[in-house]
Parts: sequence; C-alpha cells; structure tokens
Amino acid sequence: MADALSRRDLEFLLYEWLDVESLTTRPRFAEHSKETFDAVLELSADIATSRFAPVNHLGDANEPYVGDDGRVVLPEEITSGITEFLKAGLIAGTFDEELGGMQLPAVVARASQAWFQAANAAMSSYAFLSIGNANLLTEYGTPEQIDTWVKPIVEGRYFGTMCLSEPQAGSSLADITTKAVPADDGTYRITGTKMWISAGDHEIGENIVHLVLAKAPGGGPGVKGISLFIVPKFLPDGTRNDVALVGLNHKMGNRATTNCLLNFGDGTFAPPAHSVPGAVGYLVGEEHQGLSYMFHMMNEARIGVGFLATTIGYAGYLASLEYAKVRTQGRPVDQKDPESKPIPIIEHADVKRMLLAQKSYVEGALALGLYCSKLVDLQQTGDDAERERAGLLLDVLTPITKSWPSQWCLEANNLAIQVHGGYGYTREFPVEQYYRDNRLNPIHEGAHGIHGLDLLGRKVIMRGGAGLQLLVETIGETLTRAAAQPALAAYADDLRSRVETLVATTAKVWSTGDPALALANATAYLEAAGHLVIGWMWLEQLLAAGDKSGDFYDGKRAAAQYFFRYELPKTAAQFELLAALDRTTLDTDPAWL
Amino acid sequence: MADALSRRDLEFLLYEWLDVESLTTRPRFAEHSKETFDAVLELSADIATSRFAPVNHLGDANEPYVGDDGRVVLPEEITSGITEFLKAGLIAGTFDEELGGMQLPAVVARASQAWFQAANAAMSSYAFLSIGNANLLTEYGTPEQIDTWVKPIVEGRYFGTMCLSEPQAGSSLADITTKAVPADDGTYRITGTKMWISAGDHEIGENIVHLVLAKAPGGGPGVKGISLFIVPKFLPDGTRNDVALVGLNHKMGNRATTNCLLNFGDGTFAPPAHSVPGAVGYLVGEEHQGLSYMFHMMNEARIGVGFLATTIGYAGYLASLEYAKVRTQGRPVDQKDPESKPIPIIEHADVKRMLLAQKSYVEGALALGLYCSKLVDLQQTGDDAERERAGLLLDVLTPITKSWPSQWCLEANNLAIQVHGGYGYTREFPVEQYYRDNRLNPIHEGAHGIHGLDLLGRKVIMRGGAGLQLLVETIGETLTRAAAQPALAAYADDLRSRVETLVATTAKVWSTGDPALALANATAYLEAAGHLVIGWMWLEQLLAAGDKSGDFYDGKRAAAQYFFRYELPKTAAQFELLAALDRTTLDTDPAWL
Repeated sequence: MADALSRRDLEFLLYEWLDVESLTTRPRFAEHSKETFDAVLELSADIATSRFAPVNHLGDANEPYVGDDGRVVLPEEITSGITEFLKAGLIAGTFDEELGGMQLPAVVARASQAWFQAANAAMSSYAFLSIGNANLLTEYGTPEQIDTWVKPIVEGRYFGTMCLSEPQAGSSLADITTKAVPADDGTYRITGTKMWISAGDHEIGENIVHLVLAKAPGGGPGVKGISLFIVPKFLPDGTRNDVALVGLNHKMGNRATTNCLLNFGDGTFAPPAHSVPGAVGYLVGEEHQGLSYMFHMMNEARIGVGFLATTIGYAGYLASLEYAKVRTQGRPVDQKDPESKPIPIIEHADVKRMLLAQKSYVEGALALGLYCSKLVDLQQTGDDAERERAGLLLDVLTPITKSWPSQWCLEANNLAIQVHGGYGYTREFPVEQYYRDNRLNPIHEGAHGIHGLDLLGRKVIMRGGAGLQLLVETIGETLTRAAAQPALAAYADDLRSRVETLVATTAKVWSTGDPALALANATAYLEAAGHLVIGWMWLEQLLAAGDKSGDFYDGKRAAAQYFFRYELPKTAAQFELLAALDRTTLDTDPAWL
Repeated sequence: MADALSRRDLEFLLYEWLDVESLTTRPRFAEHSKETFDAVLELSADIATSRFAPVNHLGDANEPYVGDDGRVVLPEEITSGITEFLKAGLIAGTFDEELGGMQLPAVVARASQAWFQAANAAMSSYAFLSIGNANLLTEYGTPEQIDTWVKPIVEGRYFGTMCLSEPQAGSSLADITTKAVPADDGTYRITGTKMWISAGDHEIGENIVHLVLAKAPGGGPGVKGISLFIVPKFLPDGTRNDVALVGLNHKMGNRATTNCLLNFGDGTFAPPAHSVPGAVGYLVGEEHQGLSYMFHMMNEARIGVGFLATTIGYAGYLASLEYAKVRTQGRPVDQKDPESKPIPIIEHADVKRMLLAQKSYVEGALALGLYCSKLVDLQQTGDDAERERAGLLLDVLTPITKSWPSQWCLEANNLAIQVHGGYGYTREFPVEQYYRDNRLNPIHEGAHGIHGLDLLGRKVIMRGGAGLQLLVETIGETLTRAAAQPALAAYADDLRSRVETLVATTAKVWSTGDPALALANATAYLEAAGHLVIGWMWLEQLLAAGDKSGDFYDGKRAAAQYFFRYELPKTAAQFELLAALDRTTLDTDPAWL
C-alpha cells in the first residue's frame, strides 16, 4: 500500500521553502526546534500509517449506525485509532501550554494533521472539528468556559462540533430558526433542529461540546439576530442535556464520520424539573454577536476543508503513481512489434499527463495550505504591521484556499481512478473511496459558488481594494525574484501578464456598479484567480528548488512546467468571459431550463 | 420524482431536427410510420418509468451477490422489471422481421433505449449488451448459429455478453492469453480467464451466450492471432458448459449489473467424458479474424457507452432542475433586506450556470448520439455513396461520441450534486448514484486516452485524411446554413474559425512525422475536437428551432448560447498546446513522479 503522503515533500515545503525553523526565534515558539517539529511529524506519520490508513476502507464499508438503544455504533477500530491519536497528545498541537497544549506553529500542526487526513479523512474529522471548536472558545469564551470545555478537548477527553446549518438553511444562515430563551439562572434554553452536524454524536469521548448558532430575543432580523451558545451533550453535573440524535445522514463518502440531524430541546432528555423547556446553553461572548465569532473562525475552517481536499487528492496521487509503476499494459506508440513486452503504464504519455496533472494539483494545493497556515502564525506572533498584512492576505486567500483544492484535488482523484482503469472503479482499490470522500469538500463550509461571491463580491473590493493589491504585491515579490533567474524568467513573464489581466478584469466587472452583473460569473473569477495563485505557489517552489539536482527537484520542475503549459492557459477563456460582462446566466429565464 | 428523460426533447430531436419520419420511405422501414415510432417510445417511457426508475436506488443498495449454491442472486424487482421489458418485445427493436425483430430504425431504437438507460442504467445493461452480441452474430454467424443463438435473444429468452478483457489485458487485446484448441467434432475447447464481464452471469433468462476472444493455434502474434467464439453457459442439449463464475467485482456504481470474473474450461462443469479439456466453443467466421469482427461492432458499442453516459447525465440534470425549482435559499445579490423571503435557488446566477452547463452537455450529447444512430441507418439502407459517407463519418465521430459524453455528462452529474448542496451528497437523493454510475463510462469500451490515440492516430489521418475532410465538409454545410440566418451568423463565424484551427492543428502535430510527438497530447485533441462537434450539434439544433417561440425553444437558445460563450472558448488553450508540439509528457522521466 502506498504511503498516503510524502515525507520528502513535507520536508521540502516546511524547511527548504517556508523556513519554518525560523519561527522558533519568536517567543511563542521559543521552546521548539527542528527536532521537536520532526518528532511531531514522525509520530504523526507513524500513527496515521499504522492506525488510520489500514482502517480507511473498513470505516467506509461499515458506516456508523444507530443501535437499538439510540446510541451511535462505530467500528471498534475507528474508536481505538482515534483514542491512540488522542493519547499521543496530537490534538494539543497549537494550543497554549497553559491549556496543556504544545504551542506548535500552526503550519507544523497543519503538516501533522495532513498525515491523518490523507490516511483516513473521515476518521480524522472527529478530532480536527474539535480543534476548531476549541479555538473559537479559546478566543471568545470566559476563563471558566475555557477551563470547563476547552481543556478537556485539549486533553483528548471531550469532542466539539459546530452547529450552524438547519434543514431549511444551509448556505443562508440568516434564515436559521433555532431559538434561545434566557432562563433565570443566566443560562439559556435552546430549541431547534440542526442539520449536517459532522461528528454530531458518537461515544468516543466523555462528552461532546456543541457550539450552536441560535436566535435570542431582541436581535435584529437576519444574521444580526444570531447568538452563539455552548450546548454540551452532558451538563457539568453529568446529567444528559436535551440534545437528541434524530438520525444519521447516509452519504456517498466520508462515511466513518457521523453526520447528524440533532434536535435541541425536543424533550427527549429533559429532566422533569426543567423550568423553561429546551436544552441548556451557555452564551459565548455577547448576545447577537454570534456570527461574527463564527466568521472569525471561518478562515480556519475553510482552510481546513481545502486542506482536507488536498490530502485526499494527495493520497490518490500516490496510490495511482504506485499502480502506474507496476501495472504493465500496451506498448509505446512507435513500437510495432506485438511480441515486444508490455511496458509499465507510467511510460505512456497520457498516463504521465494524468500523473503530472495530479502532482501539480496536490503539491500546488499543499503548498498553498501550508503557506496560509504560516500566515496564521505570522498573524498570531508578528508585530502590528506583520499581523495586519498576514490577516489581510489570509482574508483574500481564504476563498481560494477552500475552493481550489476542493475542485482540483477532487479532479486529481478522478484521474487517479482513470490511471487504474477498471480496477480503479472497484472497491478493492482505494481510489474510488477517495473520489467519494472528496466530493464533500466543494459542498461544506460554503458551497463552491459562495466563495466566488465572497472573493469577487467582498474580498477583492473591501477596504478600497487593499486585499487584492496586497495579493498582487506579494505575488509581485515572487515574480521579481523569479525574473532574475534565467530558468524561471519565462514563467515569471507569463504569470505577471495573467495577474495584470486579473487586476484589469476586476476593475472591468465592477465598472458598471451593478452587483448582479458584476457577480454573474463570480465562479469563473474564483476559478481563474485560483489558478493564478497556484501558479504562484509553483513559482515559489521552483525558487526554493533553485538549481538543486535529483529526481525530487526534477519532479517539482516537471510538475511546474505542466501547470504553466497545461493549466494556466485555461484562465484566458475565463477572463474573456468576465471582461465581456456576459449576461447569459442573468438573462436565462428559469422557465427555459 | 423527476422524469429521467424529456419526451419533448426527444420529439424535437427526432422529428423537428433529424426528420426521422422520412426514413419510412426506405424499403427497410416501409412498414413503419410516425405512429409506430411514437408507440414504441411511449411504451418505453411507460415501462422505464414504472418498472426501471423506481428500483434504481434499490438495485444500487442491494447489489448482486453469489449465494451459497454459487449462483448469482439479484433483487426480484430487477429480474421482474427486465422480464417485463423483454415481454414487451423491446429488445427486438432493430432486428430483422425474419428474426422476430421490429426492424426499427437504429435512431428510434436508440431513443427507446434512452428511457431505460436514464431510468436505471445498471438494469438496462443486461438487455442492451445482449443486443450488441446478437448484432455481431447476425453479421458474422452462420444461419444455424443465428437460429440457435440470436433468435432466442431477440425473443427475450437468452442474454449475451462480450468477453474481451483479461486480468492482465484490458486496453491491450494483443496480450490476451485465453486459448482455443480444435476438438475432433469441429468445435473448440476454450481455456482462460475473462475479467470485467458485464452481465457475465445471472439467472434472468434461460441461457447466456458469451462471445469470447481467444487465441487458436497457428495465428500470428499479437492481435492477428485472435479468433472469436460462441461459448454458451448451457450447451444446446441443455448441459452446463464449463464456464464458471469465479467472483463478482464490487464497484463504485452500476452495482445492479453483475460484473464478473469468469473461468473458461477450468473443469468446474466439465462432464467426465470430455475428450479435450475446456469449455465448448463455436468458431464465429474464420479463425484469426476475431478482432476484425469485434471491431466492426466496436462503433456500435462505443456509441452505446457514450449514449449511456448521456442518459445518466440527463437524468441528473432533470433531478437537479426539479430540486432547484422547489428549494428556497438565500436572496438576490442586490437584495439587502434580511426579512425578504428566500428565493428558489434556480434564480441564483450560479445555479443557473450549473443548470445551463448540464443542459448544454446532456442535450448536446443526446443530439450527437441520435445523429450517429441515424448515420447507422443511412449506412445500412442508403445507396453506395450514402453508405460510404455515413460509414466514414461514423468512423471519425465514434471516438468523440464515446468519450465526450463520458467526460462531460459525468461533469453534469457532478454539477447536479452541487445544485443539491449537502442533500446531493446523501443517498436519499438520486444524484450521487448517477455520479457513481456514470464514472464507469470513461473507463470501459476503451479508456478515455485510447480514443485520443484512435482519433488523432488513426481516424483523422486514415485514407489521406478523408475522414477529417468529410467531417469538416459536413460541419461546413451546417455553417453555411447558419451563416444565412442573422441570429446565427456570429455562432457560425465562431465555429468556422475553430474548425479551421482544428484542421491546421492536425497538420501541425503530424508535421514532424514522429508519432510519439504527434500523439503526446492526443487527449487534448480529442477533447477539443469533441467540443467543436458538440458546438456543431448545438448549431444544428438552433437551425431546427428556427424562429419558433416558447420556453422550450428559448431553452435551446439559452443552452446554445451557454455552450458558445462558456465552453467553446476552452478549446483555444488546447489547440495552442497541440500546435506548440509540447513535449512535457514525453520528457518527464517516470522517476520524477
């Protein structure tokens, strides 16, 4: 079985490119060194390889179900593997030492996480969703809330979820109807139904800390009325809170992650003495500010989804690479002798195309995910200017970092199946599961099209276009360095011209002042901008590779060449469509469809 | 539940565009009329809707298995639905009346077939694979073989398969190792293992007629040594032939179709008195000519795969269209009032984009599939010149007709999931199954890349380029008609320019005489040529729509506009890559990957 991830590539990206070691000069990471980073990565690779990867198929073939007693049943191998991960302390990566955390840089924690996601995406979600939950509470919770709810997560005893969507409100949070009513003890009573709650119920840990968006009285309409609550499965005194599992969704992939419909306050677990009906909830921060807290964490969650897509794509790439090396079939197109021996399919041009495409997608996306994670570190530990700059760049990059890998690393999985031929279509090989697992990622944390609206409708125009300007300047620094290298100058010219087109196109689409027209093709804008950003990531990798020799560096150069020759030219048609202010989608009457 | 196919669109394509009624002036179809065509289509729609569509999910969730007695177990609903189809005589569509067939035009039979494929792709395969088998035998079998093996298929009593692939030889038939040894009674004994045999075993009918490629003594190496044999599951005297089911493949989709590993002549069912070991086989035609017989039927099989992909894409389009009309979510981008009501998602520009894309793919592909099926009729019933012309055009179009729908109608299914959001990712909605079912089609009947080699390496250069020239001339006739219409002239100009690029690019890639270089990007050529052909199909549909008014025709115009504005421009980058004779794939050392 192929490794799910490449140690060599991670080392290259972390040390040869992002110079992660230099972060240890910052006070927050002063206790760390390359040795401690390596130890975490090595431990992660070991546990992921020994406990997560071997049960990836098992978790898919034996999806969780609700037993007769109403409790979720998971395969024992899934539960024990997650427990092993937790015992190793790996959930504690980025948390403060005073909370029991390792205080690792986000970029190193992300690389550690990559091993588990690549090895078993569905299984990895239980812990990584809990981290997002705990990060939010660490930022906005009271010291007591942090002590009660965050510490046990960092210790690996509790899990956490995010409860946003409802059956009638997925992308549109303005329309949630879950209600919160103040009780006389300072807590709230929560009633409503939440949908698509990943890891929303299970019995792996001692408790599940739900973070629930709900509307408290007195808030404005729409998103302004939303508050955020801690609603645990078990209350601090050990009694069951009124959070009831209504059912599990049966999904195409990601099957080992429970995905739940949860009822809050429907009376299933209400103690008789309950004064106001509903599940007990504890307000986080202030009333009616819930969505702003959630959005603050959205960058993290969205980068996480893009990263998950990346790692599944990566696992598929390596599986198809291994297959292509050992599977023999056919002969070179110029070999006419039928008695000549069949060759490994990796020697066929079209198979190399499919492998180069996958490599350019997954290594490009991995670079972007780690780059953004380093921005998180700079945002957290830099001086004011650095924080400001990193935060703004993250804001602009987030829609791309979420959506580009979700689209193209899924396409990588599609190609991984194709390399396998008929075998890839069977459940005896891992690639069909990767393809199913990865299909979720263009949907959750904001469906694909939402990020086009976010990028073109908000991020590139906010603050007078400062975000786009910063992105262009930052890419420009790379272009300047590349232009000085004879081997890279042509790439730099190519990308510079496309970035100029991006800037001009942005101005053009907003030139009429009509948002409906400007945003009519926001998805094309998102996808074209994404390709430029990944082209930039490839140029960065080429600069880091310099003139070093060896197969690994030649591979980086080949994948970059593929991306510049086969992929970047695709953006021309997208920019033309945008610059033409095409009205096809606007003018199509639904009745014609 | 949405219909799986559009009656209105089929009527438009058959009667308003392809003028299928005019075929009834030909002697072969003289007994037919629009009324008989309509009766077949109506019956097909009824049975497909009442017996196939309702069990599509059931067949997926309860995949066939091998029972303790070694026999295949299928859900009763699948067996009885197929039996109903057979009882209605619908398998007999194109066969000669003297065989018990309906002697329908291929294009009408194809439209009938579309209903079953769209309603339940996996279930439809049992019958439609049998038709391919029977067509081959009708062409190359002896009268006695036709009487013994074809008639019972036309009567709906027997089923048929094609046994080409082996575990070590999928795309590369030169490397098959199944052997055929002459016995003293004029029959042969077949030994070997065949892989990926769709409908290779089941108990729906009385018998299964396998058509098996095997190597008889004395043939040359490679494909020249291949002969074709009839190897029935039961011999004419009712005894079991030595064809043993080794196991079923467990697939991502298409689960209700058994997909088998079959052993021929391994002794499982050998009667004790057997003189030469092996399964009994009957030679079809002459020894060592097997592959040419098979290739003769390959056009049909490949058009069939493309058509299957089209119909699954179509079903997904209609399902997502229905969902988009009833699901409400969000508000127009220029609506700021959070208290305004959520709108049906079909009103969002990006959802319209996803629906227009699907519509342009599936209706474009359906047009191409029916166009090619009409060519089959012209090839069969025309004068010499017409037969020649239709045959040559079919040869050139076949790789596109197989591969373009396999790629883009799968993408349509991807978009159908996306329109559904999280619901589309669950097994409670049909679209995730369509996506899984359709993923097979770029793999079987020649993997995607093979058709690029076929198109660029054979079809467009054969006979001095006569095939490409004929295609260009045929498209040119459409362009001339379109150029005369003010509303279509711009489309005609656009497509004419791209077709000129195709011709120039073809010359350029072959200019060096190095086949490895010429074919290095054959897949890009295939995909670009496919887009032009579908653009042509859209122009043909616009001409047929003329200036007729109404939502249906406006829908055709909107989808065509989408295809010309969003899709055709994608070919520019592909042609540039080809014209540059890009060597990236050739020069990449496998060790770098």
